[in-house]
Amino acid sequence: MDYLGAERKKAEFDVEDMKIVWAGSIHAHQLSDRISKLVANDPAFRKDDRTMLARKELFKNTLRKATYAWKLINELQLSEEEASKVRFYVDEPAFTDLHWGMFVPAIKGQGTDEQQKKWLSLSYKMKIIGCYAQTELGHGSNVQGLETTATFDPKTDEFIIDSPTLTSSKWWPGGLGKVSTHAVVYARLITGGQDYGVHGFIVQLRSLEDHNPLPGITVGDIGMKFGNGAYNTMDNGVLRFDHVRIPRDQMLMRVSQVTREGKFIESDVPRQLLYGTMVYVRKTIVMDASYALSKAVCIATRYSAVRRQFGSQNGGPETQVIDYKTQQSRLFPLLASAYAFRFVGEWLSWLYTDVTQRLQAKDYSTLPEAHACTAGLKSLTTTATADGIEECRKLCGGHGYLCTSGLPELYAVYVPACTYEGDNIVLMLQVARFLMKTVSQLGSGKQPVGTIAYMKRIEHLMQSHSDVQKPQDWLKPSSVLEAFEARAARMSVACAKNLSKFSNQEEGFAQLSADLVEAAVAHCQLIVVSKFIEKLQQDIPGNGVKQQLEVLSGVYSLFLLHKHQGDFLATGCITPKQASLANEQLRALYSKVRPNAISLVDSFNYTDHFLGSILGRYDGNVYPNLYEAAWKDPLNDSVVPDGYHDYIRPLLKQQLVPAKL
Amino acid sequence: MDYLGAERKKAEFDVEDMKIVWAGSIHAHQLSDRISKLVANDPAFRKDDRTMLARKELFKNTLRKATYAWKLINELQLSEEEASKVRFYVDEPAFTDLHWGMFVPAIKGQGTDEQQKKWLSLSYKMKIIGCYAQTELGHGSNVQGLETTATFDPKTDEFIIDSPTLTSSKWWPGGLGKVSTHAVVYARLITGGQDYGVHGFIVQLRSLEDHNPLPGITVGDIGMKFGNGAYNTMDNGVLRFDHVRIPRDQMLMRVSQVTREGKFIESDVPRQLLYGTMVYVRKTIVMDASYALSKAVCIATRYSAVRRQFGSQNGGPETQVIDYKTQQSRLFPLLASAYAFRFVGEWLSWLYTDVTQRLQAKDYSTLPEAHACTAGLKSLTTTATADGIEECRKLCGGHGYLCTSGLPELYAVYVPACTYEGDNIVLMLQVARFLMKTVSQLGSGKQPVGTIAYMKRIEHLMQSHSDVQKPQDWLKPSSVLEAFEARAARMSVACAKNLSKFSNQEEGFAQLSADLVEAAVAHCQLIVVSKFIEKLQQDIPGNGVKQQLEVLSGVYSLFLLHKHQGDFLATGCITPKQASLANEQLRALYSKVRPNAISLVDSFNYTDHFLGSILGRYDGNVYPNLYEAAWKDPLNDSVVPDGYHDYIRPLLKQQLVPAKL
Ligand SMILES: Cc1cc2nc3c(=O)[nH]c(=O)nc-3n(C[C@H](O)[C@H](O)[C@H](O)COP(=O)(O)OP(=O)(O)OC[C@H]3O[C@@H](n4cnc5c(N)ncnc54)[C@H](O)[C@@H]3O)c2cc1C
Ligand SMILES: Cc1cc2nc3c(=O)[nH]c(=O)nc-3n(C[C@H](O)[C@H](O)[C@H](O)COP(=O)(O)OP(=O)(O)OC[C@H]3O[C@@H](n4cnc5c(N)ncnc54)[C@H](O)[C@@H]3O)c2cc1C
Ligand SMILES: [Ca+2]
Repeated sequence: MDYLGAERKKAEFDVEDMKIVWAGSIHAHQLSDRISKLVANDPAFRKDDRTMLARKELFKNTLRKATYAWKLINELQLSEEEASKVRFYVDEPAFTDLHWGMFVPAIKGQGTDEQQKKWLSLSYKMKIIGCYAQTELGHGSNVQGLETTATFDPKTDEFIIDSPTLTSSKWWPGGLGKVSTHAVVYARLITGGQDYGVHGFIVQLRSLEDHNPLPGITVGDIGMKFGNGAYNTMDNGVLRFDHVRIPRDQMLMRVSQVTREGKFIESDVPRQLLYGTMVYVRKTIVMDASYALSKAVCIATRYSAVRRQFGSQNGGPETQVIDYKTQQSRLFPLLASAYAFRFVGEWLSWLYTDVTQRLQAKDYSTLPEAHACTAGLKSLTTTATADGIEECRKLCGGHGYLCTSGLPELYAVYVPACTYEGDNIVLMLQVARFLMKTVSQLGSGKQPVGTIAYMKRIEHLMQSHSDVQKPQDWLKPSSVLEAFEARAARMSVACAKNLSKFSNQEEGFAQLSADLVEAAVAHCQLIVVSKFIEKLQQDIPGNGVKQQLEVLSGVYSLFLLHKHQGDFLATGCITPKQASLANEQLRALYSKVRPNAISLVDSFNYTDHFLGSILGRYDGNVYPNLYEAAWKDPLNDSVVPDGYHDYIRPLLKQQLVPAKL
Repeated sequence: MDYLGAERKKAEFDVEDMKIVWAGSIHAHQLSDRISKLVANDPAFRKDDRTMLARKELFKNTLRKATYAWKLINELQLSEEEASKVRFYVDEPAFTDLHWGMFVPAIKGQGTDEQQKKWLSLSYKMKIIGCYAQTELGHGSNVQGLETTATFDPKTDEFIIDSPTLTSSKWWPGGLGKVSTHAVVYARLITGGQDYGVHGFIVQLRSLEDHNPLPGITVGDIGMKFGNGAYNTMDNGVLRFDHVRIPRDQMLMRVSQVTREGKFIESDVPRQLLYGTMVYVRKTIVMDASYALSKAVCIATRYSAVRRQFGSQNGGPETQVIDYKTQQSRLFPLLASAYAFRFVGEWLSWLYTDVTQRLQAKDYSTLPEAHACTAGLKSLTTTATADGIEECRKLCGGHGYLCTSGLPELYAVYVPACTYEGDNIVLMLQVARFLMKTVSQLGSGKQPVGTIAYMKRIEHLMQSHSDVQKPQDWLKPSSVLEAFEARAARMSVACAKNLSKFSNQEEGFAQLSADLVEAAVAHCQLIVVSKFIEKLQQDIPGNGVKQQLEVLSGVYSLFLLHKHQGDFLATGCITPKQASLANEQLRALYSKVRPNAISLVDSFNYTDHFLGSILGRYDGNVYPNLYEAAWKDPLNDSVVPDGYHDYIRPLLKQQLVPAKL
């Protein structure tokens, strides 16, 4: 029985068409649909017991799944695209993520042609398993401060990799702790007594015969992380080198090289080439944000339609909690954000292609902007997603706190995205630097490009007044854009003005950094708002689909405007009256979302397996399944718990013996 | 060695005196100090392995600790106050929390004298163990909608307790799943065919001989909850009744009774008496918020002084991350909040005494205000604390994600405080109702009292202008109070105006509920701000102690003002210029906090055991201890992991067999 059937009938758009929009194309939709079902229907990928497993069991189970998935990929002769979807829908962090997502790309990006030939062919067959060993106990954000050394020994034509201090121990790399046979290790290159900074080296860690660490290598897991299940399926590791020797040709030499004589030379391949990879990785993170947030929103939306509380009239059913405006005002902006992040992720795919093409044509002019924009979007979307998942959990009341809701694990597994690939605050400070540079160059003839192009109209934006007069005016994309542009521009300019009061710019930047981060956030929100609006300028087929997206775009921007109205008002971009009209329009939009809410989350096309939540079940049959699941907890193996005779009974019987328990 | 010694030398106040302020009195300080050390020094209370234990082991271990603590309490003949401190510092949720915190108070509050005599004497000796069984699978917030029935059978002078539907299953009560022998069960009282709503009943659940559930009772644990360790030490339970009979005198009959004949009568004891308990429980929750937040802040502050990243000059040490203004602007408001919540908790103790005295004098006039204010403060402080703990975790970068940081477990164990004892949004809506009532009665002669007394000056507050002209003006308590009062008053009045546009008030309240919650938050923030300021009007001994608290009070209010500047600006309470001056002053205050930060968290006087965090160690010796702890993970029991031969080796050797794994 479909307990949400009545909800589904209310939809004012074609869900099948929206599924295609969400997936990005018919092809992508069909692919996702096929692979997600393949995974969901295979009992080998069961995950509903994950949060109950102790670490060792959990980890062994992940090894089983990863190997099984690989076998499946080979047996079914899946393409690279299909294989990566299999890993995605298996939905369990594993060493394979780092092997495919970091080790292989690092070699592709930084290895010479010969190096690629040798190492990639081994990697593609998984004859070796690799990880990405950059972070150390003492250094994460500050990569240039890494302490591991790679000293060239011209006598033997080798590098000696060493961990000179405790804090130089590699710490965090995923897949390192128990699985990887190899790593790309980042270390300070020292040759001829000189330190040439941090470079990457391919280092074998474990014997390919018996998996024991090679001589001079100490390696292990760094221990439990946040949550049950969650990221504990991953063996984030610690690694120490005691003068480990590797051949010279295992330094990744695409960009710089060390000769047989120990001479350090920079190749003519520009360093900027490495930026391509970075844009690619960040694009993936933004897409992952939209997936994670959409999962949480799907769970909270369905459960909010199932859950009823208060408001029964004459003994009739109570009110679905999704009908409470407070619930809507917390939930619907997150639903809109999931779509917004999905579209900005799509746009980042375009940016990646654009950057790649320009790099090939040796056009580096857009790189600073691409760098700032991807850094900011990574930071913005991951922060919002982490907060959003947790809000979805709270929206489910007490039951959201149960692991069977899926939300605790989703949160715990997601949050490190705020930290890895750049701490979100550190990234926003980079955006702020770019903004300050842009402002300082205004009028210098250097034209702002891409997402910062609005700064060209700085004079207008500094003194424009919003033309909004009634709530509906806030539905006009031009009014929304103008307000967000003016706010971002004015906040940047205000920071620049304050900065100019300092004689020492660095000191000023440090003092004002909290304000600078706020300006950077304003800039990044503008990007997301504008990319959503641009998306709507495209042709979007399907009955009612575009209309729904227009509503969601409105929700996204007006929710942000309301949340940050202090920015808009302080900079005088809008009046208090206009702020209040925006809020009024926002309320009206929530009512438009309401009948479509369930179908808007159905459009994600997630299987119950992928969602992993009893509260989020497609059929809405929550209560009997919650009840059934409870009995599976190990504590329920026996009616009288282990420990009764030793602890509870003596307590009740007042027979506590003074001996140490 | 004390790696934070240099930091401690910077303090501009007397830490020992601040410890007394934090504890509340010399007596309280000495008590906490003594008991926390007693617990910390007893290896039986070790908890550093907690996040690694599987559920059964974890739970058995909790039983062991709880029983051991009880033995200790008896052997050392500890007072009730001391005993509760022991439980507090053992720092592990257990059935005892519910026994002492809910079961006993429920009987005290709702039982007749005879009932108290009988059941409390059993409870005080723990000859029975009780829990509080209110929430059901289908009803939490809406207590009046509970479905469990207690039908009086005049033939046998018994109540028949029954779970007529699946959703009527009791679900969530702590201590119920595996331990409790008894419960206070809330059920609909039915007698003479009529439903008299929800009342409490004492029901025995398990045999006192062999702990088996009594006939007609199905009971078990509801399964894993958020996080490792955390609240999984608690057996939140599910409970079903199949026509279970209890004697009539097990209905809690202080306020209403059922006679031998089955007649329902309300006693002359006013229902309001129950409010006293509620104020008491909420006071405890607010105090717990300050403890939880202060633990997180202590960890993040110490680690931020240990952690260095970037900014090394000429090979010198890098910058302590606590010196970054972004770090300060995230951390110091939380430090200030911990103190703010501590003082508002202290004030709630006074309120509790006041309410109790008034109840005895049959003065119910302040009850609505006390009800609204405690509901709002519970909601405000628990939401801020949950968010704050997580922010502290992020402030620790990658290492905050490790369980050895203590922060993941602290978060996971804390967050349900946002949900239990009233969902935080539902509570804020109650505050909003009270505010709307107050506004509607303005001018009616009914004088607003207590925390809402500022509404008496509504005419002034509606049109006042802040007199702030320079940053330092924001240090004047009167300016701060005036701004917060004006903001709260104007937001309430704006809501009331919008409400009046609806012909149906209930409909209007529902439509505007998101705005109403914002007004309620503004009111509650004002309470915290004003109680902090009132605290500073007291005599506070100790070198520099008061000065530090003044700085923190400033940080707390100006941080809120900055965060919510949209409210202040939209209501015209302050100008954009004044908002910017506040921000400027806030920055200056951060610099004042900086040298005192470590000592301000030392003042919490937490043992390393209680903190449970390697990052937060008193001695700051973080790295060697992180490194050592890693090796204790079960995954490191063997160098080559379990699963190598089955999964990793076949993968590497390309020897995957097509058979199902
Ligand atoms: C689950 C997980 C998986 C990971 N996987 C890998 C992996 O596979 N390989 C790998 O090499 N690494 C990995 N990492 C490490 C990760 O990349 C780092 O944790 C990350 O770069 C953050 O660095 P940090 O931990 O040193 O944070 P820190 O830099 O120590 O941050 C601490 C605090 O200082 C602040 N701060 C730091 N610098 C500044 C500044 N200049 N200005 C203002 N504030 C500042 C930060 O905002 C933060 O609040 C992983 C981490 C996690 C949590
Ligand atoms: C760890 C833990 C321990 C607990 N211990 C106990 C215990 O010992 N004994 C016991 O009896 N219970 C216990 N509980 C249950 C707890 O009291 C309830 O979970 C709590 O009251 C919230 O109710 P709910 O779960 O029904 O949430 P719901 O009411 O279902 O909330 C779901 C959503 O609906 C919204 N909502 C609900 N009503 C309204 C409304 N009128 N207007 C607007 N929005 C609304 C909420 O804001 C929330 O977003 C415990 C719960 C937890 C998580
Ligand atoms: Ca506790």
